[in-house]
Amino acid sequence: MAEHTVKAFDEDIGRLRGLISQMGGLAEQAIEGAMRSLQRGDLELAAQVRAADKQIDIIEAEVERLVVRIIALRAPMANDLREVVAALKIAAVVERIGDYAKNIAKRVPLIESEHRIDPISVIQAMGRMAAEMVHDVLDAFAARDAAAAVEICERDTALDDFYDAIFRTLVTHMVENPKTISEVAHLLFVAKNLERIGDHATNVAEMVYFAATGTQLADREKGE
Amino acid sequence: MAEHTVKAFDEDIGRLRGLISQMGGLAEQAIEGAMRSLQRGDLELAAQVRAADKQIDIIEAEVERLVVRIIALRAPMANDLREVVAALKIAAVVERIGDYAKNIAKRVPLIESEHRIDPISVIQAMGRMAAEMVHDVLDAFAARDAAAAVEICERDTALDDFYDAIFRTLVTHMVENPKTISEVAHLLFVAKNLERIGDHATNVAEMVYFAATGTQLADREKGE
Repeated sequence: MAEHTVKAFDEDIGRLRGLISQMGGLAEQAIEGAMRSLQRGDLELAAQVRAADKQIDIIEAEVERLVVRIIALRAPMANDLREVVAALKIAAVVERIGDYAKNIAKRVPLIESEHRIDPISVIQAMGRMAAEMVHDVLDAFAARDAAAAVEICERDTALDDFYDAIFRTLVTHMVENPKTISEVAHLLFVAKNLERIGDHATNVAEMVYFAATGTQLADREKGE
Repeated sequence: MAEHTVKAFDEDIGRLRGLISQMGGLAEQAIEGAMRSLQRGDLELAAQVRAADKQIDIIEAEVERLVVRIIALRAPMANDLREVVAALKIAAVVERIGDYAKNIAKRVPLIESEHRIDPISVIQAMGRMAAEMVHDVLDAFAARDAAAAVEICERDTALDDFYDAIFRTLVTHMVENPKTISEVAHLLFVAKNLERIGDHATNVAEMVYFAATGTQLADREKGE
């Protein structure tokens, strides 16, 4: 590329990364807010988390417009094109992560406070682990850090084990307290949403790895 | 665009539509196969559905490469650019629909056959409704049919009501048959996956509407 185009491209990429990082921050906040509202039965906070999701959608649309402009105007090749396409896909995944957080927030009013205490404490730990994966994978993207990406993929196994344990705990809880089944079923979905958030963070890690190295991480079972 | 570019663009768009339609056919087959394997407890068919998902992923990657090439080489504007970007996003959504079908297939071995009969018959009807939405929305994309897209969005409400009814039925079933809770919990996820497939078909319908008309369908609550 001509020098001025290179500079313009670098600026565009800078803006693109800024948008992704902003989306990631909002998604992380959404997970934390959703889990806190669940813990406290805080319906107002849950409503805020749901409303804040619109902002993530708006930034995703901006990423999309910017990516199209970059490809059309700057005609990036090889590594650069790979990064631009990765940004587009990562934005879409972060938007999904935001949706999962919103979904958790939506369930808060459906879970009666009297039944909340016991299984929820375990889910909180799972929520923290998922939020950290999202945080760290976006750091890895910003730093083009392939090694960090690999490490995040490995953490997903721990999150899956966590989910399996919570699934069993919740089913046992249902069996022992049949009156709570409806509420606990919502908790099952909360745990499932967290597990999906981990899967998506792992997908992002795979894209970061590919954008940074040009090779695929060993083809992994996506967990879905 | 110069005439030869227009022709090349039309050919590219034709290929793009062909790929999307192929993906859609595979996703629809996956839903039907997953639901049939669930009904019959057919583990072999369930394994086939899981394996077939790879093909959808491969076509999605091809769509992505083609879209980047079209934007870079043909520099489409306005309507054409909108259609190309829509194709990219629709491919990503169809890939997710395939993942949900795969997820249903994964649960088949976890659901004991002796408990299968009763709640599953209701879920089968829901599965048919979801598969039809996927089929029809891809027809609407191929035909740029905005009116069909609107109609598909409306059907999603019926699917959501179906889900709510099944949720209540399954919870009641759990309360009355505590020994089946673990299996029935998997059915809850199956119903949830079908409801999400409907949401995604609705998202595609919104993109089809936007690509065809240039305006957004009234901002809908995405259901997630």
